[in-house]
Amino acid sequence: MQQPLKLYNTIKREVQVFEPFHAPYVGMYVCGPTVYGDAHLGHARAAITYDLLYRYLSHSGYRVRYVRNITDVGHLENDADDGEDKIVKKARLEELEPMEVVQFYINRYHEFIGKLNVLPPGIEPLASGHIIEQIQIIEKIFDAGFAYESNGSVYFDVLAYSKKYHYGELSGRVLEDLLSFTRELDGKQDKRNSFDFALWKKAGPEHIMKWPSKWSTGFPGWHLECSAMSIKYLGDVIDIHGGGMDLIFPHHECEIAQSKAAIGYDTVRYWVHMNMITIDGQKMSKSLGNFITLEELFTGNHKLLEKAYSPMSVRFFILQAHYRSTLDFSNSALQASEAGLQKIFSAVKALPSLIANGPGNDYVKTIQQKCYNALNEDLNSALLIAEIYEAVRLVNSVKEGHRNISPDDLDLLKDIFSTFVSGILGLTEENSDIHSGLVDDLINILLNLRQEVKLKKDFQTSDKIRDELAGIGVWVKDRKDGFEWGMEKGT
Amino acid sequence: MQQPLKLYNTIKREVQVFEPFHAPYVGMYVCGPTVYGDAHLGHARAAITYDLLYRYLSHSGYRVRYVRNITDVGHLENDADDGEDKIVKKARLEELEPMEVVQFYINRYHEFIGKLNVLPPGIEPLASGHIIEQIQIIEKIFDAGFAYESNGSVYFDVLAYSKKYHYGELSGRVLEDLLSFTRELDGKQDKRNSFDFALWKKAGPEHIMKWPSKWSTGFPGWHLECSAMSIKYLGDVIDIHGGGMDLIFPHHECEIAQSKAAIGYDTVRYWVHMNMITIDGQKMSKSLGNFITLEELFTGNHKLLEKAYSPMSVRFFILQAHYRSTLDFSNSALQASEAGLQKIFSAVKALPSLIANGPGNDYVKTIQQKCYNALNEDLNSALLIAEIYEAVRLVNSVKEGHRNISPDDLDLLKDIFSTFVSGILGLTEENSDIHSGLVDDLINILLNLRQEVKLKKDFQTSDKIRDELAGIGVWVKDRKDGFEWGMEKGT
Repeated sequence: MQQPLKLYNTIKREVQVFEPFHAPYVGMYVCGPTVYGDAHLGHARAAITYDLLYRYLSHSGYRVRYVRNITDVGHLENDADDGEDKIVKKARLEELEPMEVVQFYINRYHEFIGKLNVLPPGIEPLASGHIIEQIQIIEKIFDAGFAYESNGSVYFDVLAYSKKYHYGELSGRVLEDLLSFTRELDGKQDKRNSFDFALWKKAGPEHIMKWPSKWSTGFPGWHLECSAMSIKYLGDVIDIHGGGMDLIFPHHECEIAQSKAAIGYDTVRYWVHMNMITIDGQKMSKSLGNFITLEELFTGNHKLLEKAYSPMSVRFFILQAHYRSTLDFSNSALQASEAGLQKIFSAVKALPSLIANGPGNDYVKTIQQKCYNALNEDLNSALLIAEIYEAVRLVNSVKEGHRNISPDDLDLLKDIFSTFVSGILGLTEENSDIHSGLVDDLINILLNLRQEVKLKKDFQTSDKIRDELAGIGVWVKDRKDGFEWGMEKGT
Repeated sequence: MQQPLKLYNTIKREVQVFEPFHAPYVGMYVCGPTVYGDAHLGHARAAITYDLLYRYLSHSGYRVRYVRNITDVGHLENDADDGEDKIVKKARLEELEPMEVVQFYINRYHEFIGKLNVLPPGIEPLASGHIIEQIQIIEKIFDAGFAYESNGSVYFDVLAYSKKYHYGELSGRVLEDLLSFTRELDGKQDKRNSFDFALWKKAGPEHIMKWPSKWSTGFPGWHLECSAMSIKYLGDVIDIHGGGMDLIFPHHECEIAQSKAAIGYDTVRYWVHMNMITIDGQKMSKSLGNFITLEELFTGNHKLLEKAYSPMSVRFFILQAHYRSTLDFSNSALQASEAGLQKIFSAVKALPSLIANGPGNDYVKTIQQKCYNALNEDLNSALLIAEIYEAVRLVNSVKEGHRNISPDDLDLLKDIFSTFVSGILGLTEENSDIHSGLVDDLINILLNLRQEVKLKKDFQTSDKIRDELAGIGVWVKDRKDGFEWGMEKGT
């Protein structure tokens, strides 16, 4: 019997059965990138994690409205309420209009995340395009008594909020601790308490990205966009909200506070957080020099990289870990993933030529069931891939004649590969461009020719064909019933 | 001596020398797609025309800020002030949130226009993301006395405007004619005069895309976004404004009126309009069934298409006409373009193997000069391509030993191809994917093998190789000094 999908709900601190509010519709909101730099491994993990969830929900028959925002304004340095806007700073450094910086990195994000075979979300809203909606939320928070104005800026009144609601519900932070541990305000700040956060910031004369409001010409606080855009596009009951664990505090905690203050309840039903990527055991950071962008990864152009890694290897590497585990990048780990993925693709390639003339049994059905169980157990892609390897072993056994399979079981086996490997895990062979079929055809013509000259005992020609193929990166292995060939890595 | 770039300025009705307001900076705004359907040939011509201008200006050393908007709200059916919003209608038919429709067609637009090797603009703003900026322009028009409110909607007062400014300056329309020829208002409308146009429309309860304003909850009129976004991103002096000739009236005429009413002068210095595409002599329209999308063109999947046409053939076909001429699509015209483009690519392929051992002369320099002259003469890509054919003939003459060339002239000839063909015309060989080198290598191994067996008089094998290659779409021609091969179209 198939289990229902269960997801770890951060706010409940437990794995729960997933039940959409209005099945078959599912509303899913995921925090997307702040577009002031190139996408790196962390962005890849976020995009792939929620892509897996999106694909599995869609496969399960849900009609998913998937919204992933783009932060193009209000995200200040150090994720704080002061300092320069990350995008404006980049624009100033490069002497560009901020929206040119935004557009440039949006295009690059789409390019590199697209290579990872991540499906585009249904809506990809920009924070700067939803200023009115953000102002409307601020007005509601004001009306409810949880905001105050100070010199043209508007702040969220955490103390007032915490008298009615539980601030810290998601992150487990305790207000008293925040109060005593955060530094004293230096008197220059407009906030009443250091843990208050900006809903609207008055813009200084140096600010380029600013809009009029009743409080000042300014810009919205970073947390606000997600409350505004999730409610605009998904309504006030949102089934799933995703993002990295580093966003739990302050970003998502503040988002909950804003939405609750404005609407009266937390709009999100399941908070699904993905863990971080480390590099050789260390946190990824620009100052440590271990910050690897996807472009560097795909080209091998970074001092920490022994070689280039293909987008599919990177995707597979990320999926080999459960999304709530930390994932440590190393060259050896990625090379192991590369090899593992090739085993799967070899099995996919062998599938069409398998002969089914055995009796049926439950083995293939069991594998299928276990694949579903793995996904249903909090989207455990690591476990799913272990089951796929089980299927790979079966393919190889049948191929080598060690095992028989019935026609029905073979059909089911093929279905397992197409459903889970290409459909849900999104792993597809990268050589599937317009020429790959032609390459296969040409190699087969050459190798059949080689078989013929071998039969004629013209070993000089047959060796020559083998050597010339080797010279362009195609290896050939003779087998008793024919031959096998493949391409060296990087060809 | 090189001529300066001249452009036909629609509003001046003459070809003028192009002088940016603040060289080396150039601000260029182009009307982009309304995203409620797939991109078709007309979209391709618009994108390619301004891509050519963008590439040439950049090549000439200008720093171009290129803004191309996306219309995602306010474009009503029949381009009028009444009727349903095109995107909302599509969303209703497909039961989607309007922004899902918008995102879907934006992604498709990028995909198919991208295949045409069109460079992305620096900023691609959405109308729905600039409501505040549009409201601000309305306020300015109100303050200047050229707008009136009527039942929550706001209209532009053309009569009042025309007492101070020239309404019809761009299109040549005469207000008196508009007055007498347009139908009488039926009394139900809110407009004072039928030629007035909406700046803000009050939204009915069935409207999904709407925002608050002091006049009503509603949405901006279609023409307004271009005034608002061009001024926001390019300032109030915009060097170039592009768009199709079908936009001259009412869209651009109204845009000029709005900007002038708000700011006091026309913000645009050069209005550059591109002509339309006809299909076998007829206007393209859904009702005539001759509406061909880019996807259909690239796959050949349309009853009017004899075959699939590659994106580069389509790009070349469009560039073979001057942008201000009408361009008639037909299978024969596109097939002629295909053949012409292949001649150019064959010359590019032959360039590296040319031997330069002749004396220098002025011929190549003259070709280069004529290429620049063609572009400078109102971006005459048709003339430029004629010059490129001149260069192709020279390459072929040298290749076949009919003509000598000096090393310097050969360098210049190579430069002409890289500058004009790939750089400015944006024509690049499409088979340049990861496998094309491998395909070449494999075919060469096979054909060298074939030469060997022919020398051994084993014609059976040599014919077999030829036939098997033909079977997968590779043709082989024997020549006295070897062989030549190529691929059939569509392989």
